Amino acid sequence: MAKVLTSKEENYSQWYNDLVIKADLAENSAVRGCMVIKPYGYAIWEKIQSILDGMFKDTGHSNAYFPLLIPKSFFSKEANHVEGFAKECAVVTHYRLKNDENGKGIIVDPEAKLEEELIVRPTSETIIWNTYKNWIQSYRDLPILVNQWANVVRWEMRTRLFLRTTEFLWQEGHTAHATMQEAKDETKLMLKVYAEFVEKFMAIPVIQGKKTESEKFAGAINTYAIEALMQDGKALQAGTSHFLGQNFAKAFDVKFTGKDGKIDYVWATSWGVSTRLMGALIMAHSDNNGLILPPKLAPIQVVIIPIYKKQDELDEISNKVNEITGKLKNLGISVKFDNRDTQKPGWKFAEYELKGVPVRLAIGARDLANQTIEVARRDTLEKKTYPIENIENVISELLDEIQINIYQKAFKFRKENTYKIDNYKDFKDIIKNKGGFVLAHWDGTPETENKIKEETKATIRCIPVSDEKEEGKCMVTGKPSKQRVLFAKAY
Amino acid sequence: MAKVLTSKEENYSQWYNDLVIKADLAENSAVRGCMVIKPYGYAIWEKIQSILDGMFKDTGHSNAYFPLLIPKSFFSKEANHVEGFAKECAVVTHYRLKNDENGKGIIVDPEAKLEEELIVRPTSETIIWNTYKNWIQSYRDLPILVNQWANVVRWEMRTRLFLRTTEFLWQEGHTAHATMQEAKDETKLMLKVYAEFVEKFMAIPVIQGKKTESEKFAGAINTYAIEALMQDGKALQAGTSHFLGQNFAKAFDVKFTGKDGKIDYVWATSWGVSTRLMGALIMAHSDNNGLILPPKLAPIQVVIIPIYKKQDELDEISNKVNEITGKLKNLGISVKFDNRDTQKPGWKFAEYELKGVPVRLAIGARDLANQTIEVARRDTLEKKTYPIENIENVISELLDEIQINIYQKAFKFRKENTYKIDNYKDFKDIIKNKGGFVLAHWDGTPETENKIKEETKATIRCIPVSDEKEEGKCMVTGKPSKQRVLFAKAY
Repeated sequence: MAKVLTSKEENYSQWYNDLVIKADLAENSAVRGCMVIKPYGYAIWEKIQSILDGMFKDTGHSNAYFPLLIPKSFFSKEANHVEGFAKECAVVTHYRLKNDENGKGIIVDPEAKLEEELIVRPTSETIIWNTYKNWIQSYRDLPILVNQWANVVRWEMRTRLFLRTTEFLWQEGHTAHATMQEAKDETKLMLKVYAEFVEKFMAIPVIQGKKTESEKFAGAINTYAIEALMQDGKALQAGTSHFLGQNFAKAFDVKFTGKDGKIDYVWATSWGVSTRLMGALIMAHSDNNGLILPPKLAPIQVVIIPIYKKQDELDEISNKVNEITGKLKNLGISVKFDNRDTQKPGWKFAEYELKGVPVRLAIGARDLANQTIEVARRDTLEKKTYPIENIENVISELLDEIQINIYQKAFKFRKENTYKIDNYKDFKDIIKNKGGFVLAHWDGTPETENKIKEETKATIRCIPVSDEKEEGKCMVTGKPSKQRVLFAKAY
Repeated sequence: MAKVLTSKEENYSQWYNDLVIKADLAENSAVRGCMVIKPYGYAIWEKIQSILDGMFKDTGHSNAYFPLLIPKSFFSKEANHVEGFAKECAVVTHYRLKNDENGKGIIVDPEAKLEEELIVRPTSETIIWNTYKNWIQSYRDLPILVNQWANVVRWEMRTRLFLRTTEFLWQEGHTAHATMQEAKDETKLMLKVYAEFVEKFMAIPVIQGKKTESEKFAGAINTYAIEALMQDGKALQAGTSHFLGQNFAKAFDVKFTGKDGKIDYVWATSWGVSTRLMGALIMAHSDNNGLILPPKLAPIQVVIIPIYKKQDELDEISNKVNEITGKLKNLGISVKFDNRDTQKPGWKFAEYELKGVPVRLAIGARDLANQTIEVARRDTLEKKTYPIENIENVISELLDEIQINIYQKAFKFRKENTYKIDNYKDFKDIIKNKGGFVLAHWDGTPETENKIKEETKATIRCIPVSDEKEEGKCMVTGKPSKQRVLFAKAY
């Protein structure tokens, strides 16, 4: 099979687009900026959802569902929120269509104009805090630990499949607490949950940190984020967790009576990850042959391809394969036996490479005679022949090994592409010519942050939260700095 | 605790509303006709989703995701579809807000008017068939067996929590086939899946049948439905499965090359159930004390309540409860130990009755001494004391028994409220004074169907699909009829 992807080296951006399309993950729709998530792509998203959902529940959260449409006036209630949000959004102004009297199909019925426009949710803090107002009277009603899986719409001008789309799928956690400390703890707990998920399941190392004032969520006191490095040297923000203070409680007048009888505003957090994670997953690991999926998120972990000439050979192979399949399934491994006669083995090999299936087994008449089977791993493209006996245990271990190897490869790549830089000239050079993560000192002012952004297109991804804090001097102004911050060009 | 619900007998409709609110299932939101599904209600919906999703996958379907927003022109492409649908819907006309120059908050930016309005999906046949056009060239691309879990919006004038809301959650299956027969088989298969789900898990008996021409889905050749009887004698349509023929393939020009090289339009089905099922679940089983949930859908299957005076008593009880809880969890039973000291046992008893927890255990110091525990079942309100030893097996069997009992009770109710009627006078009397299902002969014309509807408010719920077909004469016109059809007033 001819190579179906543009190579990464030739055009990284085109490689990504090709991959998303050719691996049947998603495609553009007839609606500007909105994507169709195809069954294979959606199966990966379902795995992400299911694992994260379990982690949310293990940390005490429940799911609920709030309205898609939000009254326009709600957005004005929190001053910073409306400034940073809710401008580029889908506005519902009418609630009825009618047949055109001149026979020109259907038109919007001018009689059916809404008194107040409704906004398709770009995020749900406003409608949720308006609801929480009725749920909270006393400290006994707290904490509220609720999450929502939902679609949101932000009218983006430049869209890219998974990375930036007008409509996307996400989860948004919205919690309410009696004390500032509890809300701060929750913010950090969920950041940790996200980091653990992305590292353990997506096999992508992340840096946890705090956003600067100019990069934080509109309406938050602090925003924390996890940042991952893609293979082209650009950063991708993979999840955010916001400490909202009492901002939304004040905007929506949500107060509670404490144990001591005193009345105070409620403390809040919100946190979310989206189908953007799919973009990170694709870009962090894949190669010019196609997708590379960590076994823990692969919809098909093992594919078995028969090599045969005649039907009776296939029958014999199928019997053996059914045995193997049964044993793999008992170990909780998902297997597909591709016995289609419409495609040749070579075509199938390329197809499952493209789709990132972690392990491929091939078995022919000679293997059957020798009681052996060929095992190919997607991450390294290595092939090796094993005895069929006990093959299920070999594969089970191999899947674990692949999961670890993919993570380590990404970790090594990040290490090799992370630079500690102390002068602005070197900084500009690295950002321009190499990309990657740059740890450098910054004086903490938005002026310097802006200057760097304008001159290099690199932004402060986060102020890392870690114990090792090294003092120094801002690479631009020479003013004192308490710790290095993380710079990169970003998606 | 005082009764918190209006009684069914006093005001069924108010009883239902009270129950939905007081059992913390859902509530009205600030947005007209849109509900908030609260965590306890959403936990039931998640169980429904998870079981149905498994059944869809077992029958070969995959999930995918299509855009929320659909270009207005798409709805005009299928003539019947646009007539029956897409009139009462949310219309997006603009994509940006801005600050009012006169300082009056935010307003819709008149510059940001869309060239073509977008409709918030009321159902997705149009956008999906527009997508399938690119997925299908030959018979090798068929069948496509895809389902979507999504939110939809239909601008309803009169709304009721779960039963009829402007926005609701649902799943919509959309399949594409090479032959008419295959599409017809799929339509019936999914009807069977729905019937099995509602009977086996929701514990509600249903009648499967075909809709009349006037009641079928706009754009379908045939619509099949399952109909359930509620405790007030009204019918509730709990799921529909549509054979769409080649209507949408023709509207969106979706053709394929067959094995024989001939080009033909693709055959289609669609099928869906929604959060309306929650309404059916509530209304079919519950009583004046609150919700009655079938164990298979109960988020909490067993609640344990300690009866104690002093802390050391609670400690001892807790030790024993932890043992019991562990054993129950090993059997896959979900348990909650409510050891809150802010509420008295009596309050808790009423609370879990209201929330429909199938089994309640109570244990005090005397029980501990006797090594016994009190078991109360929600469906019959019976209480009985058992030895603690082996209690996990007693409860496991009891949960199965409750599941069966709830179904049988609903089945018996339906039997007692289903009438075979042969003259129109009796028919009118039953519909007016008793309610329930009426099986009667109809001449097959929309005129007679309409007359009955106008005079009695009863509609033909379906033409049952069953083997026993009894010929007769229409109760209104005396014209010949091939089988009895099912009438009722409906939600």
